Amino acid sequence: MATGKTGPLSREELKLIEAYWRAANYLSVGQIYLLDNPLLREPLKAEHVKPRLLGHWGTTPGLNLIYAHMNRAIRARDLDAIYITGPGHGGPGLVANAYLEGTYSEVYSGIGQDETGLRKLFRQFSFPGGIPSHVAPETPGSIHEGGELGYALSHAFGAAFDNPDLVVCCVVGDGEAETGPLAASWHSNKFLDPAIDGAVLPILHLNEFKIANPTVLARISPEELDQLLSGYGYRPITVEITDPDDHDAAHQAFAAALDQALDAIAKIQKTARAQQRKDGPEGVERPAWPMIVLRSPKGWTGPKEVDGKRTEGNWRAHQVPLSGLHENPAHLHQLEEWMRSYQPEELFDAAGALRPELAALAPEGDRRMGANPHANGGLLLRDLDMPDFRYYEVDAAGHGVTTSEATRVLGGFLRDVMAKNVKHRNFRVVGPDETASNRLSALFEATGRSWMAEAKPDDDAALAHDGRVMEILSEHTCQGWLEGYLLTGRHGFFSCYEAFIHIVDSMFNQHAKWLKTTRHIPWRRPIASLNYLLTSHVWRQDHNGFSHQDPGFIDHVVNKKADVIRVYLPPDANTLLSVADHCLRSRHYVNVIVAGKQPALNWLSMDEAILHCTRGIGIWEWASTDSGQDPDVVLGCAGDTPTLETLAAVAILRESWPDLRIRVVNVVDLMRLQDDTEHPHGLSDREFDALFTRDKPIVFAYHGYPWLIHRLTYRRTNHDNLHVRGYKEEGTTTTPFDMVMLNDLDRYHLVIDVIDRVPGLADRGAHLRQEMLDSRLRARAYTREHGDDLPEIKDWVWPYA
Amino acid sequence: MATGKTGPLSREELKLIEAYWRAANYLSVGQIYLLDNPLLREPLKAEHVKPRLLGHWGTTPGLNLIYAHMNRAIRARDLDAIYITGPGHGGPGLVANAYLEGTYSEVYSGIGQDETGLRKLFRQFSFPGGIPSHVAPETPGSIHEGGELGYALSHAFGAAFDNPDLVVCCVVGDGEAETGPLAASWHSNKFLDPAIDGAVLPILHLNEFKIANPTVLARISPEELDQLLSGYGYRPITVEITDPDDHDAAHQAFAAALDQALDAIAKIQKTARAQQRKDGPEGVERPAWPMIVLRSPKGWTGPKEVDGKRTEGNWRAHQVPLSGLHENPAHLHQLEEWMRSYQPEELFDAAGALRPELAALAPEGDRRMGANPHANGGLLLRDLDMPDFRYYEVDAAGHGVTTSEATRVLGGFLRDVMAKNVKHRNFRVVGPDETASNRLSALFEATGRSWMAEAKPDDDAALAHDGRVMEILSEHTCQGWLEGYLLTGRHGFFSCYEAFIHIVDSMFNQHAKWLKTTRHIPWRRPIASLNYLLTSHVWRQDHNGFSHQDPGFIDHVVNKKADVIRVYLPPDANTLLSVADHCLRSRHYVNVIVAGKQPALNWLSMDEAILHCTRGIGIWEWASTDSGQDPDVVLGCAGDTPTLETLAAVAILRESWPDLRIRVVNVVDLMRLQDDTEHPHGLSDREFDALFTRDKPIVFAYHGYPWLIHRLTYRRTNHDNLHVRGYKEEGTTTTPFDMVMLNDLDRYHLVIDVIDRVPGLADRGAHLRQEMLDSRLRARAYTREHGDDLPEIKDWVWPYA
Repeated sequence: MATGKTGPLSREELKLIEAYWRAANYLSVGQIYLLDNPLLREPLKAEHVKPRLLGHWGTTPGLNLIYAHMNRAIRARDLDAIYITGPGHGGPGLVANAYLEGTYSEVYSGIGQDETGLRKLFRQFSFPGGIPSHVAPETPGSIHEGGELGYALSHAFGAAFDNPDLVVCCVVGDGEAETGPLAASWHSNKFLDPAIDGAVLPILHLNEFKIANPTVLARISPEELDQLLSGYGYRPITVEITDPDDHDAAHQAFAAALDQALDAIAKIQKTARAQQRKDGPEGVERPAWPMIVLRSPKGWTGPKEVDGKRTEGNWRAHQVPLSGLHENPAHLHQLEEWMRSYQPEELFDAAGALRPELAALAPEGDRRMGANPHANGGLLLRDLDMPDFRYYEVDAAGHGVTTSEATRVLGGFLRDVMAKNVKHRNFRVVGPDETASNRLSALFEATGRSWMAEAKPDDDAALAHDGRVMEILSEHTCQGWLEGYLLTGRHGFFSCYEAFIHIVDSMFNQHAKWLKTTRHIPWRRPIASLNYLLTSHVWRQDHNGFSHQDPGFIDHVVNKKADVIRVYLPPDANTLLSVADHCLRSRHYVNVIVAGKQPALNWLSMDEAILHCTRGIGIWEWASTDSGQDPDVVLGCAGDTPTLETLAAVAILRESWPDLRIRVVNVVDLMRLQDDTEHPHGLSDREFDALFTRDKPIVFAYHGYPWLIHRLTYRRTNHDNLHVRGYKEEGTTTTPFDMVMLNDLDRYHLVIDVIDRVPGLADRGAHLRQEMLDSRLRARAYTREHGDDLPEIKDWVWPYA
Repeated sequence: MATGKTGPLSREELKLIEAYWRAANYLSVGQIYLLDNPLLREPLKAEHVKPRLLGHWGTTPGLNLIYAHMNRAIRARDLDAIYITGPGHGGPGLVANAYLEGTYSEVYSGIGQDETGLRKLFRQFSFPGGIPSHVAPETPGSIHEGGELGYALSHAFGAAFDNPDLVVCCVVGDGEAETGPLAASWHSNKFLDPAIDGAVLPILHLNEFKIANPTVLARISPEELDQLLSGYGYRPITVEITDPDDHDAAHQAFAAALDQALDAIAKIQKTARAQQRKDGPEGVERPAWPMIVLRSPKGWTGPKEVDGKRTEGNWRAHQVPLSGLHENPAHLHQLEEWMRSYQPEELFDAAGALRPELAALAPEGDRRMGANPHANGGLLLRDLDMPDFRYYEVDAAGHGVTTSEATRVLGGFLRDVMAKNVKHRNFRVVGPDETASNRLSALFEATGRSWMAEAKPDDDAALAHDGRVMEILSEHTCQGWLEGYLLTGRHGFFSCYEAFIHIVDSMFNQHAKWLKTTRHIPWRRPIASLNYLLTSHVWRQDHNGFSHQDPGFIDHVVNKKADVIRVYLPPDANTLLSVADHCLRSRHYVNVIVAGKQPALNWLSMDEAILHCTRGIGIWEWASTDSGQDPDVVLGCAGDTPTLETLAAVAILRESWPDLRIRVVNVVDLMRLQDDTEHPHGLSDREFDALFTRDKPIVFAYHGYPWLIHRLTYRRTNHDNLHVRGYKEEGTTTTPFDMVMLNDLDRYHLVIDVIDRVPGLADRGAHLRQEMLDSRLRARAYTREHGDDLPEIKDWVWPYA
């Protein structure tokens, strides 16, 4: 612990860094409070103060202190560094620093380095038509909003992977530290290779309070905290601010700690890189990385007391410590005193620009943390070197005769995507220990499983320090890593059991919001899409049953803005290849691909698959019997299992009634169902009607909850004739066909649906209807006796190939 | 670390406990593999083996060992204990143990203690029509499925709160330990009071492997692990199985560790309870609780090798170590050898019953972990002692004139619910540090904020060891605690920012699945509902902006089975009181209540509110002008902000066109919109048509994503005339009215919607339409200039009160 007055800073440096910090604090308070009079060149009046005070002061001074000291370290060491603000609601601090270093005025030319600029800077904050109160996409230098807490550290590690020269300074609030995702992500250090990756410097900022409560980590003993962080694999360096008014001591202590940490990082990297050159990748040892614990008062340098109640160093400083300024002259006066305590006249010149000796403290050009291109990853993004996906075609031998495991086929393609880009170090695959289970093991022919912890001889051979498949049993950590990796300009792929992707629902929300917002920020460049493969899906969770059966992530995703989300349900291996190729080339979307891993029929040749995927939806003429005429019934399907059951139903209908005009419509790109006014992929009404008719019955078999199809199509002309089958929350550990029967998605039930809906079939179909009911009973009885599906169902192939 | 052969067990005890463990392992393997020949009384043939092998062996022997030793401890100490199986996919082990102790045959009379019973026991496992492969609701003694990993420890703590005599043995797998929710929940020990709560004994089971990868905690150094767990506040006792074949040593070591841990728990509790008697609740110190780290081979006692590859002690043992038994006689032979290695003939008598000397090892009656009533909480559930919610009525003084902060009013009611039940110790409120922010602070007049970590003089005064409001900045931990508390027969309430409840989407899924399944298990009794209050909602996240704006949890919830979910959108304080009262009295639902915390108009008197909530949906005649006639237009609304905007629109319309017949329909119970065939609260078509007409335009203002209203109503006669406004993912830090304008939910836009949809208004309404557009521009301009809403909007009241 370093708390003495002596330290690495000279008297002059001390004075300057203190002034810089004062400037950042001054600008932070100004943003929260002021509409006008930004330099306090006249006495503060109520009319200068915003009518609604929205923002968070408590965490801000600590963030500002760290930023100022990072600036010094960047200059001293020529560091390539970015700053991740876990407590993202400390937005005014990060805006202030981007402004002080000049970045802000460069990207927002209206906010200049003068009094007018300051007035605008203050006014716009948390103001209608202005900027949000958090470290949002609008904030230069940020890849992390920090509005929803828990992801700072996983984002930081994601940014550091494959950026060997980058230092990611990551402030973790002690509130955030209580969240599950954050608690898990400390272990990311078991996946970061000091030889090939950059460094993360976690700064655990203990300011003792959340909104109202103390924080857990600030209120366990220092010894326990030290054990906890050491157990996580770090060497904590503690800086404790014992006297909030002794700023010299604070600066010296923090500067010393930062130097110590950065020295340790440099030494670790040097050692590891020498080891790697000497002994190869596996010669590198997992180091104990340094980190800093900063114990500083909440609302530091703010009002000591408000209305007789302790405020600095207390939870009362969390948001806006002084309120009611329009009615309370004493509070107004206290605000003025508080702001003047930073001595703005010493910080800004006559025009309102930061004095040159202070401006000189900031790094230059891209070294400024607000301007670092890693924090605007689209600037650095290069296309993946892609193999030709058509090469991985499986032989469909017509339609519905041969079988493939779709994700295994995809694995071969991903292997070669990986292999072609290993040298670029810009592609990683993440997943919660499911890459092999999801049958993507071919990837391990091109790379290893990332692992810096202890390995043993009997382990899976793929474990490797420089592995580019990253597996930890934490969907949160996987998602956080991937987001950090994408946001810094690289590519990635997340494979997950379908049901458990809900674990990251809220992280997806925040990422989608980030993408949506950045579409409207011209200086932010588009990043690579976040690609999900959801497999081991609801219909084939044979080992695990009901807890593993939930197809609702799609419903969750489609609530977000249409311009950032895409959903694909490729029905077989060749379509999966085509979709995956498209997604890996795309930009600035979240792509959700749902596909099975079990052996399943191949419906389309590669040429057919490409055409079908390009259209996103289409009539399968080889399966249909309407010969381009008006059909009697449309059978729609989306998803591999629903497609199988639909085709099997079609076969029964064709066998029974060769004259029935059936049209089969398969949907790969779910958003095609929506209106073209709602989603850019949406069909026009004319196109939709051409596929689904304006008046014929539609029996639609869908992978997920059936009502989603209604929600996407309720405006369509023929919606009243649309009947959807899907998952209705019935499941258990059972056979595949029993699963579809439990949810009335089976072929027999689809035939019944047709009989019940096509006019004129009621009488003619009575016999077939009964036969279908009997078939269901027979299938269920067989399954309950033999524990397996009927051979005729398991071995069924399309009879008209 | 205890690994020697000597230990607390006598030679006879050793022999018996080993036999009991063998029996549990034998039954576990039998469940995974056998259809018939359960006692191996004839040579094993392929036909005795299931055609599909579904289950997880790897974790099971460890679970069985712990269960057997817990049985011994329960008998020796007369413990009241339950068993939480983090690795819930070790289902066969828990079923085996419930069978061995007799519970299973009591609740499932078809599964008797004889060869026939064994055959059925084996056959039903992971078999169509049988039981799931996990520790599911069907498993006696379980309150935890463990299918989705991460919640074992928070469930365990939830069970232990307010159960001073209960010991919750909680096995945490080393896979699960990598998840975020689990990593956070270790800190639950800062919220458990040894004087008034029971004890959790965490057993971290390190079997080194997940599905394919090693686990992080097994592959950091033992010193790091020890630091980590010590840092979490525990005193780990490690048992390491160095020789998997030396069972005597294993039993002695584990028995010694368990004795040591239980002695430590007893001592902690005795000391704390003495302290409490002497010095009051705050005199108790937070202890360092014992825990056990069990390092044992994955697939212990299973095949050492399969096809020349190491299996025992390897990831290959995760699921079914031997497969293809119908085609591979060598595997079949190996299975028989494996099963015979447990010597079933020594374990079961001629009839197939467990031998009496082994049966005598299990505890008796309710002391059996499978029969412990805490694991079937509905048995213990008692109604809350409820105050009369009508007492908290706010004076509406007519309609829409006075204002209240609805959640603050609710706080008064909750305070008295708390106060009346403090003595019963059966009601807790959880939340992520938002109870005060959500304006429920009145609760602190009746109880404290639970806090066992260090407290300081300047802390919020409510911190208290025995506080019944539980706040940690982890929605996962809050949810896990509450589920554990409810599942053991108590009541609770979760208040949360609306947007961040998505963090527990997946936990909600699992709880809803549990509730759905238990409705069909006769011996499981209904438990109290899980009540969510979602506030600080999308329309009023003034401080935080876009990242805090997401109303989609409702969409997520309604995907689950209609018989377990309920959604309420009370428009004001009195309706919120009525709804909350109803929810706290209800059973076996998930109730979602969405209500604002900001000052808002009161629409209904208490009598009106009760009537309205009882109906769940209704015409507000005092606001309507259709006088019971056919209206020209129906204005529907659900949620407080949409109700305000709708009524303001109605006022404009009434002012402009007194002759327009307007009907206002307000929806409190969202499920009323659905069909009565889809949801038990659904309206019949006749009822729906009576409210919304069969052919008149409906302009519906909804709190959340608008398409949910379409999904709920697409089958209704008048659906084609339904036009819904809601949140369309537009937001930022801005004023309340700017938020509704951004999403076209504002009063002016609703008036335009009416003009555009009511036949005949196009011409007559042209002027008003333009006025509305002008009003929007004026409102926006004012807001951008003044940073606040127009006074006429902020101060608007219903003019016809």
